[in-house]
Amino acid sequence: MITFYDCTPAPSPRRARIVLAEKGIAHQVKIVDLSKGEQLTPEFRAINPACTVPVLVLDDGAVLADNAGIAAWAEGFQPEPPLLGQTPLEKAAVASWNSRIESECFMAIAEVLRNTARGMKDRALPGPHNYAQIPELAERGRARLPHFLERFEEHMTGRDWVATSSFTLADITAGVALDFAGWVKVDVDAGRPGIAAWRARLAERPSFQL
Amino acid sequence: MITFYDCTPAPSPRRARIVLAEKGIAHQVKIVDLSKGEQLTPEFRAINPACTVPVLVLDDGAVLADNAGIAAWAEGFQPEPPLLGQTPLEKAAVASWNSRIESECFMAIAEVLRNTARGMKDRALPGPHNYAQIPELAERGRARLPHFLERFEEHMTGRDWVATSSFTLADITAGVALDFAGWVKVDVDAGRPGIAAWRARLAERPSFQL
Repeated sequence: MITFYDCTPAPSPRRARIVLAEKGIAHQVKIVDLSKGEQLTPEFRAINPACTVPVLVLDDGAVLADNAGIAAWAEGFQPEPPLLGQTPLEKAAVASWNSRIESECFMAIAEVLRNTARGMKDRALPGPHNYAQIPELAERGRARLPHFLERFEEHMTGRDWVATSSFTLADITAGVALDFAGWVKVDVDAGRPGIAAWRARLAERPSFQL
Repeated sequence: MITFYDCTPAPSPRRARIVLAEKGIAHQVKIVDLSKGEQLTPEFRAINPACTVPVLVLDDGAVLADNAGIAAWAEGFQPEPPLLGQTPLEKAAVASWNSRIESECFMAIAEVLRNTARGMKDRALPGPHNYAQIPELAERGRARLPHFLERFEEHMTGRDWVATSSFTLADITAGVALDFAGWVKVDVDAGRPGIAAWRARLAERPSFQL
């Protein structure tokens, strides 16, 4: 049985959880409670030395220890419904938006959260090593998020989905990222009707209830 | 004719340049001189509002404005030689290593460079917006690079290529990133024979002369 190491409230494993649901890939779930530091235990380090979730362990023991690997594997293992685009140009659009959302949106929010939350003192980056919080980096994250949102609102105006005419991985990454913005008290819908309408469409999908 | 917007010394467009060479995709080159700020001119903003290279403009006018999009398009447009893996597990390994190298290695080096170089004052991130340098972020980048290199040396010991038994995109991303480490005076080969042997293999490829 495929085993999915998950942590329910955290945004990163939620991305993989939605991919598995959209693909209908059967799996069992093991919860790694990040709030208790379970990702740093010897037991979990033996599975993923990078001390992060999501992790997917396949039937043959292969370990997929990040969203990039899990999404690429899932598309090959279970091609329907396609989440990475079908034509070369569609594949480019999905990869490009996915990457842009990660670096300009997801990272900006993580910089705010991880460099300000009291519970994350010395945990400014995920993984086995401790890094001190940098308040200036939190400020920078907060400053750059609106730039992304402005460009994304312009892009989403008149569009149904982020990268192609269908729901793709880019919608998953963006949808999870913009829900994550709520953790740092940014209302992404206010004054952004294109984003708000698309998020309402996402909220109707059963996978986004997960 | 496909047009590739390049800047010869910069590491990001070098990644796309190597992909195009490995795939044998014919194109013309236009140089965007980052040292003169040409990426911020109105002419280039009209092509890529994100003010970054690489950019690939296809015959039909489609604009691919980052490495993720260019690599995904190239694999679909010209499948041989495959650079993104062939089986689901290979695709996962390539995607996973590519992502890990970007976030743990490439970003760490960029954090050192962009937050210390005098010529990059207020240009701590690429793109149209200015951000002040954060010295603590440079220090953090310098601290985390050896952690990546230690893990990468362990991985490369006894392996020919980064992600699969063949040369893939992960080798391109890692090879360009580790050359980039020279910009911040880190000798990645010293005391790391697995990395050094693999870099010697890379250096023999014509595409890595570019």
